[in-house]
Amino acid sequence: MSDVYILGGHQTDFSLNWSRQNKTIFDVFSSALLGALEKTKLDAKDIQVGHVGNFVAELFAGQGMLGGFFGHVHPDLAGMPASRHEGACASGSLAILAAMSDIESGRYDLACVAGVELMRNVTGQQAADNLGAAIWVGEEGEEATYIWPAMFSNLAEEYDRRYGLKYDHLAEISRINFANARRNPNAQAREWNFTDESFTAHDGANPVIEGWMRRQDCSQISDGAAVIFLASPERAKQYADERGIPLESLARIRGWGHTTAPMLMQRKLDDSAGADYILPWTRKAITDAYARAGISGPEQLDAIETHDCFSVTEYMAIDHFGLTAPGESWKAIEEGRIGPKGALPINPSGGLIGLGHPVGATGVRMMLDAFKQVTHTAGEYQVAGAKTVATYNVGGSGTTNCSFIVER
Amino acid sequence: MSDVYILGGHQTDFSLNWSRQNKTIFDVFSSALLGALEKTKLDAKDIQVGHVGNFVAELFAGQGMLGGFFGHVHPDLAGMPASRHEGACASGSLAILAAMSDIESGRYDLACVAGVELMRNVTGQQAADNLGAAIWVGEEGEEATYIWPAMFSNLAEEYDRRYGLKYDHLAEISRINFANARRNPNAQAREWNFTDESFTAHDGANPVIEGWMRRQDCSQISDGAAVIFLASPERAKQYADERGIPLESLARIRGWGHTTAPMLMQRKLDDSAGADYILPWTRKAITDAYARAGISGPEQLDAIETHDCFSVTEYMAIDHFGLTAPGESWKAIEEGRIGPKGALPINPSGGLIGLGHPVGATGVRMMLDAFKQVTHTAGEYQVAGAKTVATYNVGGSGTTNCSFIVER
Repeated sequence: MSDVYILGGHQTDFSLNWSRQNKTIFDVFSSALLGALEKTKLDAKDIQVGHVGNFVAELFAGQGMLGGFFGHVHPDLAGMPASRHEGACASGSLAILAAMSDIESGRYDLACVAGVELMRNVTGQQAADNLGAAIWVGEEGEEATYIWPAMFSNLAEEYDRRYGLKYDHLAEISRINFANARRNPNAQAREWNFTDESFTAHDGANPVIEGWMRRQDCSQISDGAAVIFLASPERAKQYADERGIPLESLARIRGWGHTTAPMLMQRKLDDSAGADYILPWTRKAITDAYARAGISGPEQLDAIETHDCFSVTEYMAIDHFGLTAPGESWKAIEEGRIGPKGALPINPSGGLIGLGHPVGATGVRMMLDAFKQVTHTAGEYQVAGAKTVATYNVGGSGTTNCSFIVER
Repeated sequence: MSDVYILGGHQTDFSLNWSRQNKTIFDVFSSALLGALEKTKLDAKDIQVGHVGNFVAELFAGQGMLGGFFGHVHPDLAGMPASRHEGACASGSLAILAAMSDIESGRYDLACVAGVELMRNVTGQQAADNLGAAIWVGEEGEEATYIWPAMFSNLAEEYDRRYGLKYDHLAEISRINFANARRNPNAQAREWNFTDESFTAHDGANPVIEGWMRRQDCSQISDGAAVIFLASPERAKQYADERGIPLESLARIRGWGHTTAPMLMQRKLDDSAGADYILPWTRKAITDAYARAGISGPEQLDAIETHDCFSVTEYMAIDHFGLTAPGESWKAIEEGRIGPKGALPINPSGGLIGLGHPVGATGVRMMLDAFKQVTHTAGEYQVAGAKTVATYNVGGSGTTNCSFIVER
């Protein structure tokens, strides 16, 4: 069981287009970090180490070594050791894992984890191509116009082949996420309007992008950053004492899971032939998180923030989290269990589809939302009485899998 | 004091041009990993976590998420949790730090650290541009044709301004590194020939690239990878017992230092005005490593593997390691202390100038060379009787600074 506490954090408004305002990835990063310092009232000089999650600033902005930004955001952060971590769309979660490890090893007591991505400074096609760096380049995906919709259409195809799949169930996932986003003041799609036909296989209102994946099945191209501060028990106790609150009132990371599958999607699907789950390494990351948290399964969760880069990714997460038997995710959808008032709300934030998906920020943003839920500060998208929340963040076609259990 | 042991490793031949043989970054990675498994006789199934150091595979090869390669190199590595870490040319050292933290936290007992870069698949100008991702893009370096020679020429200029600098001393550093490379069977420049004029300010034999930096002052554009295995004391004991050797015969990382300065070179130089050292955050990384290792200074070192992306970077390292007073690095050069038979040999491997500089691999390669020196397996470039060896690896213009002390 982990003893890493979450002291708080901040995210930028994911509806903002920063380059349109002549702002750069530094400005996005700076905004989230200064916001997090303000919200937690932590002194910059007390932050001992920085971990940055980012996927492809090199391709979107020509920029690497984002750890060098800290000292330009605040003079007291000059010199603070920093690293950037990458596992495609799971980069933010890898930054969290590195920060936790630093704390658990006793190296540092107070860590800053920042996830960031600037993506709207290029065309949609260029953005799609840039994100292609998470396939095995030259070995897969070459026939697709839009690589990731095509790759995840393959996952839908595999669900259909093994268990049967109805498009209506995927569309319902998207409908819920867009509806949830309307209650999240940081959501990219919070003011978007849809018709009933938007969530059907209607070629006008919801055109095919690649295979099974239609427009509303896709997450957004987003600019954004999220920052959280993690602390050792001793540092968390000091933080609580200074505020006259009990240590137990703080959120903490109770468990985690991390697996890395082989890169090629076809290899993953071949390897899982005859197995219980389509993506066994995804399942293992989640069950490892359960085991480390000492919980038996989803019946002990109050909400989930999961990766819905596409509707089918969330469809996969539903059975891999154990809400249903493998292949029966549709049952949880039909029974209304995953909606905001359901037995186990999924993505009350709106998820990657409704809230947005600045890829390197997403894992950190998920943990920030888990923190908000368990500290009952999620505002209009609060899940009533939430005490235990899980996250699942994936990079590539189920390659990098990270799951955390946050509780208070 | 750290208790992380180095069980061994492997590097590729840095003279190889992999893309000319129609090979990819995966092949470079795979070659180093399989070589390291072979050399250490470790079973792949026993490796618990993977950490990859890489700077810009996105720009050179369009490839991210290199952790997904492990399961394609060996089936027993499928599922093993993996992360990629980046801090420009110090990426390899950041991967080492993350692996150490994982071991010290008790999460894992046996970690693989792989550094890799494929760079010779593009033109020299394109390679130089790709490496520009480690400046603050849009804020500095825009006037230069070759960004890094220009940035480090600024460092030479600052040395000259504060203390006086003679080009001959820089040239002597390059001459020693190229000479050392002749004894290293993995060195890119091991068969290169020079004349006496090559190491003078001769515009024909040693033309100016940018400012102070001439051709022989520059490190190489290289393809290559290096892999090391790190272990907890318990796992190292098991490894030693299985081989019938004492634990004390294994190398270990005795200390480390890590700082991250603000990104802009001019900011660094402005901040250090009036300070003892031109790059105080570099100095701190080194003195932190000394302190954690419990050693007093360079008099307790037998060799140093340091970053010589340019001759002036090594010139800077000489005084920052404390071989001389600040600004007096030339004394150690003139006294012959840094040559292979000197009191404190620097870069017996040939360094980045002679051995080569596949940027993401360099930090790992440095530690592999430190391991070879203290285990007396460095062959023709062995420093006689070496017991304690330091590394210094830098990303950007002194932005990410990492130093390790390896001993046996």
